[in-house]
Amino acid sequence: MTPAPVRKEPESDIRVLMRDMGMRARAAAGPLARATPEQKSKALAVASMRVIADAPAILRANALDLAEAKDLSDAMFDRLKLDQKRVDGIAKGLREVAALPDPIGEIMAEWPRPNGMRIARVRVPLGVVGVIYESRPNVTADAAALCLKAGNPVILRGGSDSMHSSQALYACLRAGLEAAGLPEGAIQLVPTRDRAAVGEMLTMVEFIDVVVPRGGRSLVDRVQRESRVPVFAHLEGICHTYVHSAADLDMARKVTLNAKMRRTGICGATETLLVDHAVAKTHLVPILDDLAKAGCELRGDAATQALDKRVVAATEQDWRTEYLDAIISVRVVDGVDQAIEHINTYGSHHTDCIVTADAKAAEQFIGEVDSAIVLHNASTQFADGGEFGFGAEIGISTGRLHARGPVGVEQLTTYKYVVRGTGQTRP
Amino acid sequence: MTPAPVRKEPESDIRVLMRDMGMRARAAAGPLARATPEQKSKALAVASMRVIADAPAILRANALDLAEAKDLSDAMFDRLKLDQKRVDGIAKGLREVAALPDPIGEIMAEWPRPNGMRIARVRVPLGVVGVIYESRPNVTADAAALCLKAGNPVILRGGSDSMHSSQALYACLRAGLEAAGLPEGAIQLVPTRDRAAVGEMLTMVEFIDVVVPRGGRSLVDRVQRESRVPVFAHLEGICHTYVHSAADLDMARKVTLNAKMRRTGICGATETLLVDHAVAKTHLVPILDDLAKAGCELRGDAATQALDKRVVAATEQDWRTEYLDAIISVRVVDGVDQAIEHINTYGSHHTDCIVTADAKAAEQFIGEVDSAIVLHNASTQFADGGEFGFGAEIGISTGRLHARGPVGVEQLTTYKYVVRGTGQTRP
Repeated sequence: MTPAPVRKEPESDIRVLMRDMGMRARAAAGPLARATPEQKSKALAVASMRVIADAPAILRANALDLAEAKDLSDAMFDRLKLDQKRVDGIAKGLREVAALPDPIGEIMAEWPRPNGMRIARVRVPLGVVGVIYESRPNVTADAAALCLKAGNPVILRGGSDSMHSSQALYACLRAGLEAAGLPEGAIQLVPTRDRAAVGEMLTMVEFIDVVVPRGGRSLVDRVQRESRVPVFAHLEGICHTYVHSAADLDMARKVTLNAKMRRTGICGATETLLVDHAVAKTHLVPILDDLAKAGCELRGDAATQALDKRVVAATEQDWRTEYLDAIISVRVVDGVDQAIEHINTYGSHHTDCIVTADAKAAEQFIGEVDSAIVLHNASTQFADGGEFGFGAEIGISTGRLHARGPVGVEQLTTYKYVVRGTGQTRP
Repeated sequence: MTPAPVRKEPESDIRVLMRDMGMRARAAAGPLARATPEQKSKALAVASMRVIADAPAILRANALDLAEAKDLSDAMFDRLKLDQKRVDGIAKGLREVAALPDPIGEIMAEWPRPNGMRIARVRVPLGVVGVIYESRPNVTADAAALCLKAGNPVILRGGSDSMHSSQALYACLRAGLEAAGLPEGAIQLVPTRDRAAVGEMLTMVEFIDVVVPRGGRSLVDRVQRESRVPVFAHLEGICHTYVHSAADLDMARKVTLNAKMRRTGICGATETLLVDHAVAKTHLVPILDDLAKAGCELRGDAATQALDKRVVAATEQDWRTEYLDAIISVRVVDGVDQAIEHINTYGSHHTDCIVTADAKAAEQFIGEVDSAIVLHNASTQFADGGEFGFGAEIGISTGRLHARGPVGVEQLTTYKYVVRGTGQTRP
């Protein structure tokens, strides 16, 4: 394992370094697109075995990161820290991606033309992916595995805090590439902590086809604002659970409690509860009871406060806030139209749920809520590629182009048209 | 018909104007997404009838454009000019888009989860489309029709030269919207010639989801360089026809002549001919004969010049040039590997063809040429949404994200995930 260079290099050197990585990624695209499913699976299986075999070295590298890290909050320390169980999880993740169906070469559609030509839309790799992440070292392996499965060269730019851990994991991935006869340029880790490297990645449109930021709001915000390269991301998940007047009370309680409190820190956690006026008296108080007992702070509009003394006043800002914490904002609405309007106005087009036994209200909600994921009678916490059956995800996108919702292997591909003829010419 | 304002307005006014249009487009997105297939078809059918009824007014408006136009080349004059036949063609185009299947609401995929939830990927409109075009007035109707069919509000920014014609056609489209009860914001035409309007469109990321430039290289280049909004476009179509050693001579002659000379000014026209060394003597000279007889200028490498005295020397720049004219560059290659390398190096990832009777060579070419459209034994001039069976196209994209190749109604849509449960919570 090479120790991470920590010196600040001049910007022109960073530019040269990054463009060189970009060129090597581009050069790897062809060989990787032609790699067999077996080669890609082998690379991931070997990498997985290496992670297990190298666990002591990986943990030592992680200890170095933890020792060097300054001013880490408890949450940041937890994100950065690896233990044997987490290392095993990383190895397992690699094996799981290896076992996914290979998407490349799939015939997505095929049709004949009147002149006898046959046209097929065939799935091919998307191109070079740049992944910019923060302190979780596992992203090094997870993101690289998904990109490799989809046939995409990847340039990984990990957090400065996790540099040693990422390099130790990267060594395992390289061993996998080598064992499978795949080019080194298929997976590259930016070898410097200099933040200028991120700026280069965001402007290298000739070398990078899409950037995926993995991390907190400030990272995603910077990437979305500055990037000239297309971005798959969501800035925030302001998710709603809407309890309609025809909601079953037990279901509404169970779904809302899970949607808010199962894990409060994930992007699919509900941040705002909307309840129909017609059932505010019967449904809202029991739901608030459940949330309060689970330790959730309650902020609500006047109608909610009138029903429950524990509720503090919500401000306009609350409707626009992703708490990622045990806090919920609550509003009483006068029906499905107002609920939809609230969600489309204040939400982040991520994931929203209606609880109702009324099929018509459900269909209206599903049709009119303009979000990547819309649920009927199921928890917003299901907003996850794994839960969707994608095997794994590199993130969730609230963008409308190309990838919307969970970004799995399939969303990391594109297509080409293949036209097979017998000498046809255009009249 | 309102006369076009021609005064130069201060930039701040343009900004206010454009943002106001953006807001109206955004506000129309919901109603348009919920419009029935019948409403959208009716709007287009009524617009088509209005185009026929208004033909005299449209032709008068066009005459005004032609009279005002200064320094137009013959080609530009031809693009700008309307006659009764072209007006009829515009009306027919509207009817054809009206008759296309409605893409919205299509269930693209659906699958159950082990916990009983059902997940569906459902086709929905892409969002607000900005179309920036030059002198062809028909784009006003064609682009608006495709966007409307896909449920997308559109902001049209036509060329200054065709302002009167575009406004006359726009009046017909508005009549269609009104007759169908669809919002005015669904189709808007920028009412100023001020070029600052384009700059605003390219940065209005809050209001425009994708920009489609329709026009010459300098327009597309500007849009691709400046736009903060994603772009569906191709900068150029440097298309290749490759005559492999196993090509049937008659087929190679027929396909190459059509690919180059059927229409030299379209993006799918072949610009470079590659011929295998093994068949240069037998195949190349007859192919060059055909081209020369059809009036094509021949530029070639030394090997080509050695075979045919009519061939002038091609420079490195020729391999990178989209002539859009009766000129072809010709290179003798030593086999499929070199042909693929040439195309991936010098091409524009648009459309490329191999002529061969060898299935293995064809599959290698199809797999390794990194272009939106790859053909085997068919003319590159088939690179067209209509020829693909899409009904109509708004352009061809060489981008890898979302829309690659012909951009038809389907490519102007995206999807949302709809999850239907019975009270499921995430463990």
